[in-house]
Amino acid sequence: MIIQKSTNPRISTFDPDNFSFGNTFIDHMVICEYENGKWGDVKVMPYGGLPFSPAMMGVNYGQACFEGMKAYKDPNGDVFLFRPEKNFERINKSAKRLAMPEVTEEMFLDGLKALVDIDRAWIPQGEGMSLYIRPLIFATEEALKARISNKYMFAIVATPAKSYYTEPVSVLISDFYSRSANGGVGSAKAAGNYAASFYPTQLAIEQGYEQIIWTDDATHEYFEESGTMNVFVRINDTIYTPPTSEKILDGVTRDSFIQLAKKRGIEVKVEPIPVKTVIEAQKNGTLKEVWGVGTAVVTSVFQALGYKGEKLMLPSLPAEESFALALQKDLVNIQTNHAEDPFGWRVLVEKKIMETA
Amino acid sequence: MIIQKSTNPRISTFDPDNFSFGNTFIDHMVICEYENGKWGDVKVMPYGGLPFSPAMMGVNYGQACFEGMKAYKDPNGDVFLFRPEKNFERINKSAKRLAMPEVTEEMFLDGLKALVDIDRAWIPQGEGMSLYIRPLIFATEEALKARISNKYMFAIVATPAKSYYTEPVSVLISDFYSRSANGGVGSAKAAGNYAASFYPTQLAIEQGYEQIIWTDDATHEYFEESGTMNVFVRINDTIYTPPTSEKILDGVTRDSFIQLAKKRGIEVKVEPIPVKTVIEAQKNGTLKEVWGVGTAVVTSVFQALGYKGEKLMLPSLPAEESFALALQKDLVNIQTNHAEDPFGWRVLVEKKIMETA
Repeated sequence: MIIQKSTNPRISTFDPDNFSFGNTFIDHMVICEYENGKWGDVKVMPYGGLPFSPAMMGVNYGQACFEGMKAYKDPNGDVFLFRPEKNFERINKSAKRLAMPEVTEEMFLDGLKALVDIDRAWIPQGEGMSLYIRPLIFATEEALKARISNKYMFAIVATPAKSYYTEPVSVLISDFYSRSANGGVGSAKAAGNYAASFYPTQLAIEQGYEQIIWTDDATHEYFEESGTMNVFVRINDTIYTPPTSEKILDGVTRDSFIQLAKKRGIEVKVEPIPVKTVIEAQKNGTLKEVWGVGTAVVTSVFQALGYKGEKLMLPSLPAEESFALALQKDLVNIQTNHAEDPFGWRVLVEKKIMETA
Repeated sequence: MIIQKSTNPRISTFDPDNFSFGNTFIDHMVICEYENGKWGDVKVMPYGGLPFSPAMMGVNYGQACFEGMKAYKDPNGDVFLFRPEKNFERINKSAKRLAMPEVTEEMFLDGLKALVDIDRAWIPQGEGMSLYIRPLIFATEEALKARISNKYMFAIVATPAKSYYTEPVSVLISDFYSRSANGGVGSAKAAGNYAASFYPTQLAIEQGYEQIIWTDDATHEYFEESGTMNVFVRINDTIYTPPTSEKILDGVTRDSFIQLAKKRGIEVKVEPIPVKTVIEAQKNGTLKEVWGVGTAVVTSVFQALGYKGEKLMLPSLPAEESFALALQKDLVNIQTNHAEDPFGWRVLVEKKIMETA
């Protein structure tokens, strides 16, 4: 690994109480380039622009996939990653589906740790604060031919993140637009999946909703995901989430919620969720909660479901009765070293670079 | 329009008899940047790299779409575009579906003409030769948040293209993988659609096929497209092509073939094509031809269809009996100014920049 420290760090200008999530970048990034059938050296270098032409295949043919993950700083200042090996596995699944080369553990896990270590001062401390980390792979060959690229870049960039708390949102159950096809790339964190969702989401916003609950494209009779999150439904005291498939992302937060729910003795059913069942449960009062889970906000609780012109309200449970909030708390406590970690999910980021620099 | 001519042109090194299609770039490119809700100046400038960070939204969330078109040089050295207004309309349809800003006629059509004009020396002359032109729009804002970008680049880059002649290919009718979902982005020239097709195509190649005939994702019972082309089937003397929809690209070559076929008095049916019908026609000898059409190769004739483990051979028609080849010839003759243009499809690129420079 090559480490090239910034000679002009911006950390002194960073105000953890006043920053913009998503476009405040930490001082460094990781890059690694693929050419002639192999990856080159992993480099930690100052964050910034690199020369790419508009003929870059990544923006022409969309060979690009990413991961989203976080680093947390506990009250002692120790820094932890959360299940990073899951993201490492998944980026390689995405890469495979998009005919891109897989990355190595050294590139992904060691690169991640080195970046978080060198820029640990950028990780804000306190409830809900974290560093949001974006590993990605994209095609960099300059060529106007719809074929697999011969050159790629793996990169890791990161931005400080604020409290994940969000107000309950209203979501529209889709009966026309879809995010994934049978035999498509829905389960990959493919760049193109996100662009495809923006216009339908914009239409939903114009109708007074914040997000879309995606349904299967053939019949629109089954839940798939919600916005960019996996979806959970609670009917009485049982929680349901759709099984993963080539259409549904294998979310790390989803998997953690399932394990945490089982640990609490909550019944979890991983099975297809018919829209009809959810609507009926809302009508007969057995629908208790519907929520989305993902790395960025952990949990997004829904207050209403839009379906065929109707806005169906969900009960507003007291916090202590909410499974969504209980599981969120369990998860965050493990992530931030405020609770035991019986699953071995937390990974300490050791201080290496700062000391030797 | 701002014109910044290359001070270091590479045209003297270009050998029209020996170049690599797709990664030989002409001396200039067009760029135009979108920020604060509006497009800036259109610039013709030397082709090359521009600084983009790996946090660029185009490679993270896939807001990126393109067009493919060609310029042809006739024996007198006059240069023509083919139905450029169709590409202009379509890039804006793609942009809309991906929640990107539409481009203006000045950016697209005037930019195109200025680029082709300034680099007309790069257009190889002779049968099947052309300049392949790639207008594209992609998100350029640096932000790690899955939302609509606030910044974009429109660009036009181009590469000289060789003879479109290709050997007949074998194609595999897909019964698992899909390129588009109901309510998805299949009809947009979205970057992500191409990446999604590479892995299934690779698997088809490993089975001895060159391309995939994409079928509907829900049942795999109907033809959609072939590779990156629209598909045509001839049974007896009637030709069929599926209707366009949100799943099927509204191809310029497809539309031109339909009009040219009608002009020749060939019966054309724009209707869903059941796989079953094609297989039955192959078995009973009424299936005469199956071919793909697109800007890059005009026509790709198929010699065999793979379906459920069987390789079904297509008849090898003499050239004079082939509708595919007749229509291809009609089209190329119009494109290259070797025939009358009753449709008004050809657009002369006037000499402006060279003379005034």
